[in-house]
Amino acid sequence: MTESPESAPSGRSRVRRKADRGRYDWAALCEVLDAGLICHVGLVLEAGPVVIPMAYGRVDRRIYLHGASGNATLRGLFSGAEACVTVTVVDGLVLSRSAFNHSVNYRSAVLFGRAEAVQDEAEKRAALTAIVEHMVPGRSADTRPPSPEELRTTLVVGFSLAEGSAKVRSGGPLEEAADLGLDHWAGQVPLQLVAGEPIPDRRDDAPPPVPDYLSQWAENRSRPSR
Amino acid sequence: MTESPESAPSGRSRVRRKADRGRYDWAALCEVLDAGLICHVGLVLEAGPVVIPMAYGRVDRRIYLHGASGNATLRGLFSGAEACVTVTVVDGLVLSRSAFNHSVNYRSAVLFGRAEAVQDEAEKRAALTAIVEHMVPGRSADTRPPSPEELRTTLVVGFSLAEGSAKVRSGGPLEEAADLGLDHWAGQVPLQLVAGEPIPDRRDDAPPPVPDYLSQWAENRSRPSR
Repeated sequence: MTESPESAPSGRSRVRRKADRGRYDWAALCEVLDAGLICHVGLVLEAGPVVIPMAYGRVDRRIYLHGASGNATLRGLFSGAEACVTVTVVDGLVLSRSAFNHSVNYRSAVLFGRAEAVQDEAEKRAALTAIVEHMVPGRSADTRPPSPEELRTTLVVGFSLAEGSAKVRSGGPLEEAADLGLDHWAGQVPLQLVAGEPIPDRRDDAPPPVPDYLSQWAENRSRPSR
Repeated sequence: MTESPESAPSGRSRVRRKADRGRYDWAALCEVLDAGLICHVGLVLEAGPVVIPMAYGRVDRRIYLHGASGNATLRGLFSGAEACVTVTVVDGLVLSRSAFNHSVNYRSAVLFGRAEAVQDEAEKRAALTAIVEHMVPGRSADTRPPSPEELRTTLVVGFSLAEGSAKVRSGGPLEEAADLGLDHWAGQVPLQLVAGEPIPDRRDDAPPPVPDYLSQWAENRSRPSR
């Protein structure tokens, strides 16, 4: 990855299709990583490629994944397998007059590299904090921190953002000139992952009020953009 | 894949972690496939594993992916590479009193197999129709169908659902008994991909009214569940 939005670092991460949609700079990647909620991790296990959804967190130019020590995907990453981590945010549907030009508005970040096992306890704690903070900023200070036993049974891997690309599709439909006169409705439908009302744990007879950081987070996700 | 929700067909698709969350039957997979909007396709290209977001459609027990003939992922699939197609629907965040027990409510389908190139023109048309219908049911009849040239330059691959598993996490937080007395807020926050108002193509001076199938679709996606 480079600071330049123009040059791809290698053939693997170069966006080939719709190359005008591709960016390789750090800021573009972070925007997508911070907007996404989960990632899809791909690696090759004995039987072939697998793609698994996982939570993640970011600290600087490193993203962290975690899981129980029995998790096969995590174990594969832990042992240094080549991997790809993809984060996709769906922003809307694009309906054109032709079936052919239908599309999806989205932002994606595709990262390549080898994950590194995080063994250092301080980094492990920081990574787990980052994963909780990625879900809801402000949350980690309002929880019981991991016990030594919980830390021990959790695998954490770090993924340095050495190589990757961001891709963004936005705006209305492409159309062939000859299709513009057709009377099919055309345009876009915005989509956003929206939060409902927080539901307190039913075991709480007198649940504490919804904390500010959480109602703020839900409020920010309470309506589709535009 | 079997009709039984209990038995996994092979080691690869067996859900190992939280095995009580895994199901292998056809109905469970289709529920997730029909609820999802995009999939993440993993395969191994020359440089290593890649995971790419793609639109998809389903016809019976076969899912279809499409792309331009220059698309490297599609070409890999077209040539019969082993692949994994994963669809994930995020349903909410799960906040526990302990950082350790935070989780995400989700439904995922993870499918393994080799994609087959679709060469037959009728099947190709049916596949492209299915992909448009997967976006918005009813839409395909309200578009200009693909021209012979558009068909020719579009690669379509079919993916038979021979092996896969669905995994669902729902409900409130797990807690250690000792944590139940802590006064951190705990519970879940529902999340749903919600549609905003359809925005007509700005090139349309007098856009046709939003068609019923589209306003119905947007209405069904206009508020978070619960």
